Amino acid sequence: MGIDPGLTRCGLSVVQAGRGRQVIPIAVGVVRTPAASELPQRLVRLSAAVREWLDDYQPDVIAMERIFERGNVSTVMHTAHAVGVLILAAAERGLPVHMYTPSEVKKAISGNGRADKKQMTTMITRILGLAEPPKPADAADALAIAVCHCWRAPLIARGLAATSP
Amino acid sequence: MGIDPGLTRCGLSVVQAGRGRQVIPIAVGVVRTPAASELPQRLVRLSAAVREWLDDYQPDVIAMERIFERGNVSTVMHTAHAVGVLILAAAERGLPVHMYTPSEVKKAISGNGRADKKQMTTMITRILGLAEPPKPADAADALAIAVCHCWRAPLIARGLAATSP
Repeated sequence: MGIDPGLTRCGLSVVQAGRGRQVIPIAVGVVRTPAASELPQRLVRLSAAVREWLDDYQPDVIAMERIFERGNVSTVMHTAHAVGVLILAAAERGLPVHMYTPSEVKKAISGNGRADKKQMTTMITRILGLAEPPKPADAADALAIAVCHCWRAPLIARGLAATSP
Repeated sequence: MGIDPGLTRCGLSVVQAGRGRQVIPIAVGVVRTPAASELPQRLVRLSAAVREWLDDYQPDVIAMERIFERGNVSTVMHTAHAVGVLILAAAERGLPVHMYTPSEVKKAISGNGRADKKQMTTMITRILGLAEPPKPADAADALAIAVCHCWRAPLIARGLAATSP
């Protein structure tokens, strides 16, 4: 399961790793919590939504985008609160959580750590054989993170890369 | 219940508001999670500990220190993840959460928004009539946040101050 963490919009995806570099898309969606609501209620809503996804899809592992302290301070803090809640939900089920930086995800998917949103969407649509590009961007990002992990997991298993938080 | 949020050390306190400015200390402690552990396991441990406190003491309201994006980046992000988990625990029980900045707490307790740790410890020891200063500093901070809320809650109830997150 791939997670593009956020409080206003949180991208969630489920994929199945196939042979070699084959990855099969299972589900993708975006959980939204209203900016007009208070922070505690928003965290409860996000937590309930991700737990529902975990119950429905029973993933083996979680891949999440690592956030950085840049941009709007309030947004970064809200995202960091959301990350805490998301990691907790996974860890309470004993699921391993792997974190990837945005550039690691971009590099894995497009070969270019600085790929723009359009390039990323084109690549992820092609890799997963989708009829049309996933929308919104958070959904595409969640798929990209999941694919990134599918491709890196064999390396991690062989001890060639470490991505634990 | 007062919370000085943190992942390595999280101060927790329970007080009972009395008449006027009287505040009765009930409990104080510090939850630690080992820096050597992985983030997911640390968040699970913190969450379990705060839920145990909520079960044991059944507080009516939570007062928490608002964190800022300064100092070591990794520490700030870890603290922000912890805050998400702590707010979730309170909100899942339907408890209101009030946030106070460090200077609001200092001003309420000592009359000086820039009071140092020593002044704050002296004041909180005197206000609560403790036989000796609370230790460690996170415990004293958790008590100060709880006392701050006891004194400000009547103003908040009358609509004279707003501190929701």
